[in-house]
Amino acid sequence: MGHRSDGRNRKRIFIRNILIAVTILGSNSALPAYGRHQTSQIVQTRDEYFLVDCGESVQEQMNHFKIRKSRINHIFISHLHGDHYFGLIGLLNTYALNKRLTELNVYSPPGLEEVVRLQMKLANGTFTYPIHFHEIREGGILLEDEKIKVTAFETKHRIACFGFLFTEKKVPYRLNIEQVKKYNIPKEFYSHLHYGEDYITESGQKISNHLLTTKTNPPKSYAYCADTVYFEEICACIQGADLIYHESTYLQDLEDRAHARYHSTTIDAANIARKANVKRLLLGHFSSMYENLEPFKKEAQTIFENSDLAIEGATFIA
Amino acid sequence: MGHRSDGRNRKRIFIRNILIAVTILGSNSALPAYGRHQTSQIVQTRDEYFLVDCGESVQEQMNHFKIRKSRINHIFISHLHGDHYFGLIGLLNTYALNKRLTELNVYSPPGLEEVVRLQMKLANGTFTYPIHFHEIREGGILLEDEKIKVTAFETKHRIACFGFLFTEKKVPYRLNIEQVKKYNIPKEFYSHLHYGEDYITESGQKISNHLLTTKTNPPKSYAYCADTVYFEEICACIQGADLIYHESTYLQDLEDRAHARYHSTTIDAANIARKANVKRLLLGHFSSMYENLEPFKKEAQTIFENSDLAIEGATFIA
Repeated sequence: MGHRSDGRNRKRIFIRNILIAVTILGSNSALPAYGRHQTSQIVQTRDEYFLVDCGESVQEQMNHFKIRKSRINHIFISHLHGDHYFGLIGLLNTYALNKRLTELNVYSPPGLEEVVRLQMKLANGTFTYPIHFHEIREGGILLEDEKIKVTAFETKHRIACFGFLFTEKKVPYRLNIEQVKKYNIPKEFYSHLHYGEDYITESGQKISNHLLTTKTNPPKSYAYCADTVYFEEICACIQGADLIYHESTYLQDLEDRAHARYHSTTIDAANIARKANVKRLLLGHFSSMYENLEPFKKEAQTIFENSDLAIEGATFIA
Repeated sequence: MGHRSDGRNRKRIFIRNILIAVTILGSNSALPAYGRHQTSQIVQTRDEYFLVDCGESVQEQMNHFKIRKSRINHIFISHLHGDHYFGLIGLLNTYALNKRLTELNVYSPPGLEEVVRLQMKLANGTFTYPIHFHEIREGGILLEDEKIKVTAFETKHRIACFGFLFTEKKVPYRLNIEQVKKYNIPKEFYSHLHYGEDYITESGQKISNHLLTTKTNPPKSYAYCADTVYFEEICACIQGADLIYHESTYLQDLEDRAHARYHSTTIDAANIARKANVKRLLLGHFSSMYENLEPFKKEAQTIFENSDLAIEGATFIA
């Protein structure tokens, strides 16, 4: 776990053992205010960047915080309120202007493709790269490879809205190369060792897995809880996550307003973090009515100590 | 004629005799670069603001330069390339969030309304204010009242594109109140005096207009020449304007590239300014390949001395 706020030094966090880190590009709700931008985040693994939501000015924020746009191949849009996707078309357009060739995948509730293709048609433009729109209609796995799994889960908002859980995929056991060589285990069997199997020699002797491997650290996970009113059902989806972001549009005194608009307060977010038994909570999606954000942190900490503010430019490590 | 670059002191230019001033919000082409934003300008008269093009992040630029969004009732979009309108939907959305009630007029080539209404529908949102989309299909008067006339004129670009001429409307003669009282001219006749008529008393005596009035200054005008390749036909539309903005995406050494993309160079812009006999030229729509803009000014000045750079935050008075 860590936290850096200086965009210019971001490279330093690319160390071998960090597999999920989140950089905040925008943490305001509805409209830009007090220098804060609409919602957008980069979730980075050792190999690539995932863009989560895409508020207006996201390109500028990426320029500002030295995020290489070309490393993004998957964009996840939680819902189709403008403060979560109005920056997408500009980014897609910039990719085309920059003659991007790499395939791009965009995941969102239905409707986004029509908007994007209409705007491209009006400009008489074309994508220089394959672009695939994946419609999210219910919770489930969106993306899975040997290193990461991204799962959508439903939140409860005014329109269809999804959160995203990023889970590191790793083998439970790491080879102890010295021992593996000593016992002369064939390479073909290595993948079995990663999953805890014992090795049986040709003569029938059993070499116990624990002699050949060490346990790896548990896989890291990050959950982006999108826009939502207090909704306990998400706890099951994000249970035990190392890091979650949960919206807290308002302080607790405006609970009625928050709930009427299907948003959460600081206390709602903190209760979800506590009930889901997560390790760390980031608060964001702040209403434009607030200049000073410190009370958000203080209120949440009354329920969940390890709460922090999703400050733009800061990187949080799961 | 003047120039202020400090957004915080913008109020100082609201002096009685200035009728047209232009504040640059964005002067880059295609995508944001070197801290420059995509195209957007405020044309202000004594009474209101007109927004001309609406690149992404326009709201933030307005916040930054202390432009009151609520003073805008007319938005003119030159063409439907994204760098000229991707900021519009966010602004319209913010107006709705702020519960705007005043009617808003948006002028653009056909297609924009469909994009805006589709995005509003996907968000399950509504406009809190009457919004009228006016399709520009050919040159002509878009707006005319007793103080200002806005005319569209065709430019030559890859898709339908229009420039806009803002012309102050004023009476040619101002009353000399002392004289008017001395000769006892009835109030009902004042409007005739403004247009140079002599007054005939009941006894048939002629009181010459020049005894009762002084000539006003000629009306000011500003022409926004949008995106265009070198296109001499626009000279007739902007002839003698006090101030024009003409795109100059590239320096002269990239003339071939400019023309292949239906854009202009510094020399193209300066030649238009000279041939149209305008008083002052602003250069803008700079390609993202340039960090240093001074060569743009220098090149243009070899043809047209009174050339300047459309620097963001600067206000130019016609």
